[in-house]
Order: sequence, then structure tokens, then C-alpha cells
Amino acid sequence: MSAESSLELPIVGILGGTGALGRGLACRLAASGVDVLVGSRAPTEGSGEMRNVDCAAEAGLVVVAVPWSAHADVLVECRAGLVGKTVVDAVNPLGSDERGVFALRPSEGSACQQAQRLLAESHVVGAFHHVSAPSLLGDEQLDSDVLVVGDDEHAVQTVMWLVGAVGVRPLFAGPLRGAHQLEALSANLVALNRRYRGRSSLRIGGL
Amino acid sequence: MSAESSLELPIVGILGGTGALGRGLACRLAASGVDVLVGSRAPTEGSGEMRNVDCAAEAGLVVVAVPWSAHADVLVECRAGLVGKTVVDAVNPLGSDERGVFALRPSEGSACQQAQRLLAESHVVGAFHHVSAPSLLGDEQLDSDVLVVGDDEHAVQTVMWLVGAVGVRPLFAGPLRGAHQLEALSANLVALNRRYRGRSSLRIGGL
Repeated sequence: MSAESSLELPIVGILGGTGALGRGLACRLAASGVDVLVGSRAPTEGSGEMRNVDCAAEAGLVVVAVPWSAHADVLVECRAGLVGKTVVDAVNPLGSDERGVFALRPSEGSACQQAQRLLAESHVVGAFHHVSAPSLLGDEQLDSDVLVVGDDEHAVQTVMWLVGAVGVRPLFAGPLRGAHQLEALSANLVALNRRYRGRSSLRIGGL
Repeated sequence: MSAESSLELPIVGILGGTGALGRGLACRLAASGVDVLVGSRAPTEGSGEMRNVDCAAEAGLVVVAVPWSAHADVLVECRAGLVGKTVVDAVNPLGSDERGVFALRPSEGSACQQAQRLLAESHVVGAFHHVSAPSLLGDEQLDSDVLVVGDDEHAVQTVMWLVGAVGVRPLFAGPLRGAHQLEALSANLVALNRRYRGRSSLRIGGL
């Protein structure tokens, strides 16, 4: 990639960038030459991390990789800095009990739709729900496709670029109203991992 | 497979066996040497089809492949014949509007859970939500894994065998409460098919 074209690429901010998924995405993006800002609720001094709210304001494109329990609060806190921007929501609302992990259903329908309701002046796109954080943190080729859902075609295209920069194949999988099943499917992947002792990932055949 | 062992295999009945998915499953199972009964709401005379209610009563294992609009009615009609049996639900509750196909959410949580509520004395297992009916009806190798969800281990194992007989890899993906996202994901696969003009199928990597 030439220096000229890389000047066109947005700086990518990762809210919850110190969690496993956030760190994995940050590593892969940085390795692709993307400028990454790592946001955290409690940045470690001297680490290069920044507060989520500052990360949201400074980045051109933001990935939300916070725990579901913090999802709404972080988005409300960062709202002003996200106006007009593309926001990639990767959060899986899950609960667990003695039978394992199960999908939660936010009142808005999905975490993505909750994000779009809270960030009415941003373009929310869903992606990265099924990539394995430990695999991202390793250096192997990723055996995964990423399904991308969103309503704004320009924002979706930007996220397709971002997914490619992580090193996986982006596939457009419909409007944002189809986000819940992507989020919820992560519960089935956890069940697969338990049964088969692996790191399951999603692939799409037949295209 | 020896004649002795094939005597142990259940006769498989397919409710809605004249639809595209039902016909495809029937063809693949018959090609594997499985005895198949094709059920229909309105059997064509001389076709070898039978009424769904008779199919349910005569088969040892039943696959539900009816349209979502007929799901509850067919199950109630067939209930007596299904007592004590394993019932494989493959039905995807979907709606459509000008923006495409979208997932419906039955009040029970999923079609599978509706089936389990209506068939309290049967063991309902979810499977075959993402296999392409046109691909099943062709003769190519199927590029697909089948996620199987269910609460009864013996019934799940029987369905794992059935999936293998269709020629695809079965993977246990957790309890029946995880069925909704499998059903709903078919809406995203339809969106993929529209965008990329293919017959998308689900594969699981990393196991």
C-alpha cells in the first residue's frame, strides 16, 4: 500500500481495546499498517492506551469490543465523539448458567440495534461476532469469514475494508435487523468449542 | 452396511416431504439406503406419498420440513403418532418485505421450541436449517456442516447419524434453547445469496 493511499485510511479506535477481542483486532490491524487507538475504561499509565471517550473522539472509525454489561454505558459516554462516524459493533450479549452459555435478547432486538438507537447520528454496522480472540492474538492464518450487517451502504463498505485488513473475508449478510442471530450464534460456537475442544469459527461455502 | 445393521435403522418420515427441502433430504437419505416415507398435506394419488399424519405414525424418526405457516397445525395433527419418537425440526420462521427476508421470533423462542411445547412426549432436535434444497436435489458433494441442537442426548445421537446419512458433517451445537439463532441465520444466508448470487452454506472451521 502506498503512503498516499494509507493517508486516506481512517484511524481505527477500539473501545474495550484491552479485552481479548479488542487486543486481537488491534494486533491484526496494526500488522496491516492501520493506525489503531486502544480505548479502555481504565487506561494503564504509560501503556499508550487512552480513555474510551477520547478514543471515540479521535478515531475516524470505531470498533465496539466492550463486554455486553458495559455496552450501553460506554456508548452513551462516547456518543458526542461518534457523531457522523461509522461504528462497528462486535458485542455478543450472552448469559450463562449450569447448562452453558446462552444468547440474551436486548429489548432493541440486538446489541447492534441498541447501539444504533443510542447513537442515532452514527452509522452502526455489525461485524466480528465469531472471530476467535485467541486466534486473532496468534499469528496463524485465520480460518474464518466475517458476516457484516448494516443499513448504510457507505458504512458497510468501510467495514468490509476493515475486515479485510484484519485478514479475513468480509461478506455482506443483510440489514442491521439481522444482527441478533449473528450475536446469538456465538453461544452455539461456545457449545461447539466445549464439545469438540476447539476454537470454532464460521465459514460460508457455496459463494 | 450389512443387512443386519440396516434392520436396526429407523424408517425416516418426512413431514412436508414434497417441498424442496423435504424432497432433497428424501433423495439423499434414499441414496444412502435409508427407508424414507414422504408425507404431504395433499398426497398425489399413485405417487407413493402419504398423508403427514400417517407418515408420522408409521415412521420411527420424523423430520419436519413443512412451511412455517403450517408448522403448528401439522404438529398438532400428527401429535399422537409422534409420542416417544425423535422429531427433527428443520423449519425456518421467516418473513419478507421490501428490504428482503427477515427472521420471525415465535412466542416459544423458536420453531424447535414450539415443536417441543406441542409435542411434549417427543424428543425434538433441531437440524438442517442451512442446507440448500437445490444443492440437496443435485448430485454434487455438499459443502455444508449441520449444526444440531437438542436436549436429549440419545435423540441428538440419532440425529447425528441421520445428518451423516445425508452426506454432511453433524456438529452438536448445544441445547434446544439455542435453536432460534440457527433458524434466524437462514435470513442472513438468503441475503448472502442475493448479494453474491450463490447458494451459501454454513461451514465451521477450527474444530
